[in-house]
Amino acid sequence: MEWKNLDTLKTYQDMKQEGCRTDLTKELAGEKGARRVAAYQVPMAEGMIYSYAAKQVDDKVLEQLRALAEESDLADKFAELYNGAVINTGEKRLVLHQLTRGQLGKDVVADGVNKRAFYLEQQKRIAEFAEKIHKGEITNEKGEKFTTVVQIGIGGSDLGPRAMYLALENWAKKNGCFRMEARFISNVDPDDASGILNITDPEKSLFVLVSKSGTTLETLTNEAFVKNALEKKGLDASKHMIAVTSETSPLAKSSDYLEAFFMDDYIGGRYSSTSAVGGAVLSLAFGPEIFGRFLQGAAEEDKLAAERDPMKNPAMLDALIGVYERNILGYPATAVLPYSQALSRFPAHLQQVDMESNGKSVNRFGEPVDYPTGPVIFGEPGTNGQHSFYQLLHQGTDIVPLQFIGFRKSQIENDVQIQGSSSQQKLCANVAAQIMAFACGKEDENRNKYFAGNRPSSIIIGDQLTPEALGALLSHFENKVMFQGFLWNLNSFDQEGVQLGKVLAKRVLAHETDGALKAFSDLLDI
Amino acid sequence: MEWKNLDTLKTYQDMKQEGCRTDLTKELAGEKGARRVAAYQVPMAEGMIYSYAAKQVDDKVLEQLRALAEESDLADKFAELYNGAVINTGEKRLVLHQLTRGQLGKDVVADGVNKRAFYLEQQKRIAEFAEKIHKGEITNEKGEKFTTVVQIGIGGSDLGPRAMYLALENWAKKNGCFRMEARFISNVDPDDASGILNITDPEKSLFVLVSKSGTTLETLTNEAFVKNALEKKGLDASKHMIAVTSETSPLAKSSDYLEAFFMDDYIGGRYSSTSAVGGAVLSLAFGPEIFGRFLQGAAEEDKLAAERDPMKNPAMLDALIGVYERNILGYPATAVLPYSQALSRFPAHLQQVDMESNGKSVNRFGEPVDYPTGPVIFGEPGTNGQHSFYQLLHQGTDIVPLQFIGFRKSQIENDVQIQGSSSQQKLCANVAAQIMAFACGKEDENRNKYFAGNRPSSIIIGDQLTPEALGALLSHFENKVMFQGFLWNLNSFDQEGVQLGKVLAKRVLAHETDGALKAFSDLLDI
Repeated sequence: MEWKNLDTLKTYQDMKQEGCRTDLTKELAGEKGARRVAAYQVPMAEGMIYSYAAKQVDDKVLEQLRALAEESDLADKFAELYNGAVINTGEKRLVLHQLTRGQLGKDVVADGVNKRAFYLEQQKRIAEFAEKIHKGEITNEKGEKFTTVVQIGIGGSDLGPRAMYLALENWAKKNGCFRMEARFISNVDPDDASGILNITDPEKSLFVLVSKSGTTLETLTNEAFVKNALEKKGLDASKHMIAVTSETSPLAKSSDYLEAFFMDDYIGGRYSSTSAVGGAVLSLAFGPEIFGRFLQGAAEEDKLAAERDPMKNPAMLDALIGVYERNILGYPATAVLPYSQALSRFPAHLQQVDMESNGKSVNRFGEPVDYPTGPVIFGEPGTNGQHSFYQLLHQGTDIVPLQFIGFRKSQIENDVQIQGSSSQQKLCANVAAQIMAFACGKEDENRNKYFAGNRPSSIIIGDQLTPEALGALLSHFENKVMFQGFLWNLNSFDQEGVQLGKVLAKRVLAHETDGALKAFSDLLDI
Repeated sequence: MEWKNLDTLKTYQDMKQEGCRTDLTKELAGEKGARRVAAYQVPMAEGMIYSYAAKQVDDKVLEQLRALAEESDLADKFAELYNGAVINTGEKRLVLHQLTRGQLGKDVVADGVNKRAFYLEQQKRIAEFAEKIHKGEITNEKGEKFTTVVQIGIGGSDLGPRAMYLALENWAKKNGCFRMEARFISNVDPDDASGILNITDPEKSLFVLVSKSGTTLETLTNEAFVKNALEKKGLDASKHMIAVTSETSPLAKSSDYLEAFFMDDYIGGRYSSTSAVGGAVLSLAFGPEIFGRFLQGAAEEDKLAAERDPMKNPAMLDALIGVYERNILGYPATAVLPYSQALSRFPAHLQQVDMESNGKSVNRFGEPVDYPTGPVIFGEPGTNGQHSFYQLLHQGTDIVPLQFIGFRKSQIENDVQIQGSSSQQKLCANVAAQIMAFACGKEDENRNKYFAGNRPSSIIIGDQLTPEALGALLSHFENKVMFQGFLWNLNSFDQEGVQLGKVLAKRVLAHETDGALKAFSDLLDI
């Protein structure tokens, strides 16, 4: 097995020469279109499907993508990863987030520890702790139950857990497993912490400090902010805080926390929603059982990602089609459009997972690559987006591939009939309509009302956004991004691009600047 | 004055041939860089500045952009607009949102009415109504004060007002003018309305139904949803609802509402934050005086937009540089990055303003254009984004121009000192550092840690995010988008691209489908 640049692969070179032949306005027309919808879908976990009928591919391209998967050893590379190879070459680390939710391959032992056992142990410790909180066996100093959990973290310690919490909040309320309200403090902007503290009763709140290294400036600053607020109320901060960190961090054995739960260097922040980073806040909010069901869904989807054949592996197929769109068709961005208000922050989480993993110009050996890598990712829930940026998606000068997500049932299952249909039916009708409007367009003599069509999309369809379905969705996109990293020959698991800004910011704060940096700092009164 | 395509303009053709010469890694280095920062800035309203020192322009390019502004008659076109010409040619409408906050030119009379007087009258009616609510002169049926206002609207009736509310919520709390909490229901997903109703006491809530036409499907559906909930609680819905709509809409004279306030066809949804659409909810939440201060800031900034010389007109200059980046330098996206948690939804609002206005492929005469128009717009607040998608911005294969926004002071002015600096100082240090990191990059033998630099950004710097500053910011971007529309020769004020999806969705709900559309509908169980 070799790690090669995309443009050295024979299949890629062939595809590059051929370009695109698929005209969606014809392929999706009439009964042929219906047959295409039936044929161009792959089962996912939890009864979901990944439909690529509205992508600009045909049987020939799919055959080539299968060959590309083979030539670039995608399945073998994933197997290396889950069997514990040093895939994060830059930082010389294993990449083990899949192990937090299941074991796909052999035992992975690192630093003398079976890592699956380690992650399970942390889950168990969190579950026990959460149950004590829920039962009132651990309380505040007055013996009152904690009612709110506030996560303090940024980036991977914020976006994923926050998006997952919002995705399940209403489902949990409906299904009688809503235990504690969760809030999140992330930004170093003091108005973030102040604003949240203004609407939170600190006396009944448990704060979860999340930092793998224990040195993240924003997070430590916000911790101090919160401690200050607790002390002003005469509360003992150490009785209101837990830490999620690595065992080697300065937070690990501090008496400042009620308890500390652990992750490690083999789990990148943006991949940490299924580790203790997501586990603590989600187990506290919804109970450990719900968190377990979320992990179960992710584990099921991971198993599909281990399939060799992309036609049975939705994440791999999605990745291949995405690379086809980026490198053969030349599209620079991708929109993620969930038709589910509960997934309101899911696009922001995927923006991080994708852009931080694959927004790179050098391959895993540190050599510049000569082809575009990760696209810009953005998105908002439908139907809201339809009344906002869809104008550009339909009639703008650039084509933006779309990833729709839809569910047959709402979470709360409280609905009204207006003009002969329920809100949920209207929601679903809209996403079906959008796929076809983008793909097939519309002729019109008035060019202002003309839609060119041939704007590709895929859709993931599920029955309902349950904990399992959410886990499967998360796994799908994590694995998609991983396969794209393999195709582009990138190290998707480091983030050297965030370092320079940190270094310069420290210099500004130390007043060790001159020239333009000093001039900008002066304008900002620092 | 003529409306010409960008690529027919002599200045543009010259610039296109010359390409880019500015090397930011050199221009921003040393004392030369400091001088550049001092020189390359334009005053905005409220003591703010627009700094373009980190854009890839030099004096020669700026001279050409000035010539381009002249050749495309930008100032005259804006004057036509604010003097009441039919600028929205597609829908044959005037474009009057600036009149909601001031009068830049002559009296505009349409449909026999002085429009400035009409907008002022609506503001006054809203102010009086809001004061009665605040004083308890209008109450619920039990005689209790309303404590919460819930806006029901989508797109322009949601994103702008929501972003503005969030932008001022903490400021208002700090400054003693927080009157009512606001919430928003927008998505046709029934979980949106259900979720909000679950955390809202309808008995003490006033609902603001916002739809210009009175026919927006999502909004009418959510109205029915809310009425249903009110009736289930034994409440008279008509005593809990007001409408914001046009005078000709079915909602205008309905007895279903306590009161109706009016906008008209000359204000596009995405430009309606300063009309009754934003006015009702913001006046109820913060009081009419604060809404007035917000309008005042917008009016001040509008005045600057009427300047002929782009070097004194920040919106025009921003627009020109943006077109330079899009059409000469070929960058396909722009990120909006406010270093202010209060502006958390401001990028989502600008995404609508920009992409719905200029995401078009035909000029104002309905003829296809041969150049890229509106870019993809996305963004999240800093420093959060730094820990997410900035990796791609720093080291990805595509260059994404950046629009930073920063303020010297926080809104709540509650802060802590950690490691010798306050959170606000850390926030500001980070944005200054990012500008320089993007512009100048960093050499490194390890290519993984190498930053190429030459990634352009601008920054708007203000003292504090007050109502006036927010109004000025909003006006800046609205006018920027307008000037870009003029440059690209688009009609920025219609949105034909949203129609096709609506038509097809109706067909799905009526079960009048076949082929692929039926197949997708079946998959979604509609």
